[in-house]
Amino acid sequence: MRKAISILTVIFVLVSCKQQETSNTIKVSNIEALNDAIKNSKEGDQIVLSNGIWNNVQINFYGIGTEEAPIVIKAETPGKVFIEGESNLKFGGEYLIVDGLHFRNGYSPSDAVVEFRIDKETTANHCSLINSVIEDFNKMNRDDSDRWVQFWGRHNTLNNSYIRGKTNRGPTIRVDLKGNEHINNYHQIVNNHFGPRPPKGGASGETIQIGDSYSSMSPSYTLVANNLFEECNGEVEIISSKTNFNEFRNNVFYNSEGSLVTRHGNYCTIDGNYFIGDGKNENIGGIRIINTGHWVTNNYFYNLKGKSFRSPLAVMNGIPKSPLNRYNQVTDVVVAYNTYVNCNSPWQFGVGQNLGQKDVLPPSEIRSARPLRTLIANNVIYNEIGDESPVLEHDKADGVTFKSNAINNQGVSFENYDDGIKSVNFELKKVAENIVLPSLNIDIAPYQGFEFENISKDLFGNSRNVNNSIGAVVNADANVPSVLDKSKYGPSWFTDEVKARESAIIIVEINDNLQEKIDKAENGDVIVLGNGKHVISNPLIINKSITIKMKDKSKAVLFYEGENNTPLFKLHPKGFLALEGVTLKGTGNQQAFATLKENMYTHFGLSVSNCEISDFNFALKVYKQSFAERITFKKTSISNCENGLELSEETNDKGDYNTEYLTIDNCQFDNVKQNVIDYYRGGYDESTIGGNLTLSKSNFTNCGVKEANGILINTRGIVNVDISNNTFKNNPIKLVALLWGAKNNSHNNNTVNNSGKIVVEENLKMKLMY
Amino acid sequence: MRKAISILTVIFVLVSCKQQETSNTIKVSNIEALNDAIKNSKEGDQIVLSNGIWNNVQINFYGIGTEEAPIVIKAETPGKVFIEGESNLKFGGEYLIVDGLHFRNGYSPSDAVVEFRIDKETTANHCSLINSVIEDFNKMNRDDSDRWVQFWGRHNTLNNSYIRGKTNRGPTIRVDLKGNEHINNYHQIVNNHFGPRPPKGGASGETIQIGDSYSSMSPSYTLVANNLFEECNGEVEIISSKTNFNEFRNNVFYNSEGSLVTRHGNYCTIDGNYFIGDGKNENIGGIRIINTGHWVTNNYFYNLKGKSFRSPLAVMNGIPKSPLNRYNQVTDVVVAYNTYVNCNSPWQFGVGQNLGQKDVLPPSEIRSARPLRTLIANNVIYNEIGDESPVLEHDKADGVTFKSNAINNQGVSFENYDDGIKSVNFELKKVAENIVLPSLNIDIAPYQGFEFENISKDLFGNSRNVNNSIGAVVNADANVPSVLDKSKYGPSWFTDEVKARESAIIIVEINDNLQEKIDKAENGDVIVLGNGKHVISNPLIINKSITIKMKDKSKAVLFYEGENNTPLFKLHPKGFLALEGVTLKGTGNQQAFATLKENMYTHFGLSVSNCEISDFNFALKVYKQSFAERITFKKTSISNCENGLELSEETNDKGDYNTEYLTIDNCQFDNVKQNVIDYYRGGYDESTIGGNLTLSKSNFTNCGVKEANGILINTRGIVNVDISNNTFKNNPIKLVALLWGAKNNSHNNNTVNNSGKIVVEENLKMKLMY
Repeated sequence: MRKAISILTVIFVLVSCKQQETSNTIKVSNIEALNDAIKNSKEGDQIVLSNGIWNNVQINFYGIGTEEAPIVIKAETPGKVFIEGESNLKFGGEYLIVDGLHFRNGYSPSDAVVEFRIDKETTANHCSLINSVIEDFNKMNRDDSDRWVQFWGRHNTLNNSYIRGKTNRGPTIRVDLKGNEHINNYHQIVNNHFGPRPPKGGASGETIQIGDSYSSMSPSYTLVANNLFEECNGEVEIISSKTNFNEFRNNVFYNSEGSLVTRHGNYCTIDGNYFIGDGKNENIGGIRIINTGHWVTNNYFYNLKGKSFRSPLAVMNGIPKSPLNRYNQVTDVVVAYNTYVNCNSPWQFGVGQNLGQKDVLPPSEIRSARPLRTLIANNVIYNEIGDESPVLEHDKADGVTFKSNAINNQGVSFENYDDGIKSVNFELKKVAENIVLPSLNIDIAPYQGFEFENISKDLFGNSRNVNNSIGAVVNADANVPSVLDKSKYGPSWFTDEVKARESAIIIVEINDNLQEKIDKAENGDVIVLGNGKHVISNPLIINKSITIKMKDKSKAVLFYEGENNTPLFKLHPKGFLALEGVTLKGTGNQQAFATLKENMYTHFGLSVSNCEISDFNFALKVYKQSFAERITFKKTSISNCENGLELSEETNDKGDYNTEYLTIDNCQFDNVKQNVIDYYRGGYDESTIGGNLTLSKSNFTNCGVKEANGILINTRGIVNVDISNNTFKNNPIKLVALLWGAKNNSHNNNTVNNSGKIVVEENLKMKLMY
Repeated sequence: MRKAISILTVIFVLVSCKQQETSNTIKVSNIEALNDAIKNSKEGDQIVLSNGIWNNVQINFYGIGTEEAPIVIKAETPGKVFIEGESNLKFGGEYLIVDGLHFRNGYSPSDAVVEFRIDKETTANHCSLINSVIEDFNKMNRDDSDRWVQFWGRHNTLNNSYIRGKTNRGPTIRVDLKGNEHINNYHQIVNNHFGPRPPKGGASGETIQIGDSYSSMSPSYTLVANNLFEECNGEVEIISSKTNFNEFRNNVFYNSEGSLVTRHGNYCTIDGNYFIGDGKNENIGGIRIINTGHWVTNNYFYNLKGKSFRSPLAVMNGIPKSPLNRYNQVTDVVVAYNTYVNCNSPWQFGVGQNLGQKDVLPPSEIRSARPLRTLIANNVIYNEIGDESPVLEHDKADGVTFKSNAINNQGVSFENYDDGIKSVNFELKKVAENIVLPSLNIDIAPYQGFEFENISKDLFGNSRNVNNSIGAVVNADANVPSVLDKSKYGPSWFTDEVKARESAIIIVEINDNLQEKIDKAENGDVIVLGNGKHVISNPLIINKSITIKMKDKSKAVLFYEGENNTPLFKLHPKGFLALEGVTLKGTGNQQAFATLKENMYTHFGLSVSNCEISDFNFALKVYKQSFAERITFKKTSISNCENGLELSEETNDKGDYNTEYLTIDNCQFDNVKQNVIDYYRGGYDESTIGGNLTLSKSNFTNCGVKEANGILINTRGIVNVDISNNTFKNNPIKLVALLWGAKNNSHNNNTVNNSGKIVVEENLKMKLMY
């Protein structure tokens, strides 16, 4: 084992009086050697991990470096050292750096993949993870909670790293402040690329969380700057700031479904950030404000269509004398020098006002306290299409003052708040990709609010001391940054761009072994089933992205003769199945599609079109903790099944659900006896805005005969439901659907004949989660 | 009017580039001239108020001075300028100083006597009130709320001033933070002498309040240093710190009934203060801790006997997820290097734990959250008489760590918390008045907690860098301050010492006009009533401190023939009557003693001994908003009265009551038909620890025949009740008393014969005040 250590001694010329000391470069190739090297390390040492896969390594990096001579663990070649299996990394001590690792194909055995303390007594200060990647490092089950980078101590840094693919419970990054050693931490999260975090299907899917309600009184001073957040869609909060004095500067939020939220804590600075949407997706948000004393300055909002909680600027109502973990009133907030281009109702006040629910919620949940002493000044709005309500009041904005704001609203009239919002005609010009700004400074003198002299620079870093003007930028031509250039973020050695590859077409005839063909296929390949009856005896394992379809003008039947309660298609993590034009037939007691019962450590997906499914116990069975972003059935019939589409196992009522989008279009359901569609989310959680059922142009006949709860289409707790243009005929059931009026549930143009009713209940009683 | 201005031009040599400017000294002698002078003032100007009484002056002092050349309003002779009547002073602008005024004989027509803003738009910054006195400047009624010095803005100062005698509702000093202009204020309250503030008889009687629960998230950085607090007894909180980062340094709390309380807000520093009691008074407290991150260091606690809320160190239980205005959990508090001499159970944890009241209080009032991550280190306790429980756990102190503490407990055993409290034998020596300290450094190495290196000095300012030791002082002989030398505090020109004066004896015979004699008497004089029947036709007005007694071996009868519903003795504000050996007789429909019905702008007092009172409607009627610190009846009979002692008008249930101490000893009550004793406090307010009834060695016969509520001795809501050694005989009543078990109510050794029962109810249902 000792042989594995080859010591390359290098003379470091250290600054100050330490010139006599000798620093070492120690190359190690296994965990024991690494542990030895760590144990013997001293300031200035470099421990080099040899290239290759490091499996099941739990690295406790303890050492005392100095600012001038930190102790470094680095990859032999950045990006060629892979940390896999049950692995994690913990820092303890001072001035330590880890550089160039790639975490993949594994998960942490502890609460965090990377943690800035080894144990309660051994905290890290002035330590850094740099130039590294953490990718798909999910625990085996969605409810198994962890963080991927967990900050403790003070002055620690995550920079130039790339992180993506977290699907299990827990924020990707979390800063902890419980204990005086962890406050006033001045941690830095800078220059990182936060790649896609898919929707989690419930709460606790933040990309960054700083503190929690229990430490919401603590000063944090965490800096989150110059990061790219791309498709960070985990939940409604991309960043959840829960402590005081945090700073969010010059970050780019690009097509990310969520908002930067000052959830708890006060006096945060949100300056010079870019919020860029696609002009369509209503889940892409901006900044949501709760609590006191935040300054929102110099930000740029483009093409955002989010509403209410997800609006570009959502200023919430608070709960009077709020409990510690709920919503304090907004006071003393300043929103100044921001620019909003093509955003719908960008300024929303009293968001979350829920007086209408006071019959079903306790008083300690009613958000009736309107913002106080809030100032909206020197902002610019441009709307390509005029907006009747650039300001939307969910509750009266009588504690909000508007000064020297301008809008080009294309002549559409709007409420001007005592001339605090002036109609101005100006043109835009594109200065960079996704950045369009007024072509000239707008001729409105900026309002000089209290301490506005501290807003000394604009979005691009130009000085506001001379020729100051309203809006995020004083000179649209100077210092224009290329904020969407991905090479500016993350590790120098890494790119998330995937080379396009042509899909292979794999023909499978009735006598071929279909599973073997699937196993050989690669992501994106297409399997074409030959004409005739393919008899399948064992579940087909789907653990990649694959399309299975019939040959043109033929009829492929998959006849499943497997055991009872086994699925024809067994959907594994990363199993994305598109099935087109195939007939699936069981013997009555199996499942057509089912997920694993456990260890669904990441998402699956299912798209079924032009298929016929019959004679199964379940058409689809999704087990607890399984999650698909999308499940779609189109032009498909489901008949003679005991159960239909069953996604209702998240009954611990913590806001979780099994798919983000369940879409059923142009389908036929005939003689499905119970759980025809059963889609469930439980728990009162106003910040999970999820579950989406679209049920359209489908026919239901002779269904629900055994349905115990008397409802054909079960959607309890699902926030977005649209049931339109369907026909329900001869279903012996009490209710076709029971919809939630206070949420985004609707029904239109359905034909109901000799079936139950569609009932809308305004307020649903839910279990309180808090 | 213009004549009143005499301009004395003085050349100021100003620092910096302003040497050319001319500053003026303007002498003014009336408000119009003052207003003109203020209006025309510029930096460096001095406005001199001529000596004398300034009546009904409302001074709005607006100006822009500079740090080098402030604008000053000063007394011609400090202490010879009296502000009286309906008067106040408001600052607005920058660098203004008011110097040498004496507020007395009046009250403010607004919310404050001195206020650091003129209106919402005109705040003061860098302004000072110095070298001034505010005395007895009370509003006309106790419930009329105001502050005497109200801080707004930033960097304002109250220094070298003397303030005493506030009895009306509202903290004496309040710092307001609502609005960004008022946070990070760095106000200084230094070198003042806070003289007596008598008990208010309810909440809102703080001497200093910094912020409130609604601004409890705001950074304040207010400094309260080097002040003397003497008999600041207004309520349970002398200082109520409700914001963050405040500092309390080197103050002396001398015989003050209350505590320094971190009521809301976090991260306060309480360093180097003196808490000095008299070894008897259980109302004299120390430091009460709520919330997160406070540092309590280098403080000295002497002769304190307060318990629970008023214990020398009271660390409270919080309410889980507390509402904003209630009790957050204590976390991350450090108590280090303090010395406790002759204090009973100085360290109390889980104070306020009230799980026993969960049947009568809502869950949001139950303090069940124990302190977390709290460190008690390097402290010293000396007990002259060994203490079985130097640590008292109202709830488990399982979140508290004890390190390197020492106690000389005179050999009495105690719980040592994993050896965190060590028994050590050491001697004390007296180093100054009321300061006794270990004679030598104790040989226990100080624990080095997180950031303990910042505790670099001791109580006396000695360095801890060398020869550090536990306890408040490292070297008891070096730099001993004379902290009780009153000349170090308040204005240079003022002393609160009153020259002793011999009481005059005034004889009043039956044909003399008693009222005239009373009017001529001075405070402290004694009126001696001649033998016989003094017929009194109009109420006797008592508005000073006076004793009325019988001549030796005679019998003086005051026979009152005044109108119905008028009192024989009409007790005015400042009316303190001691009545000895006199017989009072009415005609059945008047009151023997009563307060004014309104305008009781300050306290009264009543002591009755060896008297006989009969044939009145009320023996004593105390009207709403009247307050006496003490009402005492000794060896006195009350007979044939419709009502007895009636103090029950504070029924708005905000915690108020009419006397602090009601004492009845060795009295006879015979044929008092209702309200025999009726003493009331309403409202759930755990921080008002008042109302004290001592009823002893008294006889009640034939009383309560008309009592509507069926209780003879009514004490509802009174916190401290002791009914002992009395005899109740033939009173046709259901209950003799209904006592409050959860509070300090007790009864002992009473003889009850053919009367009702004494019942103890553990939990009383009270109206919630919050």
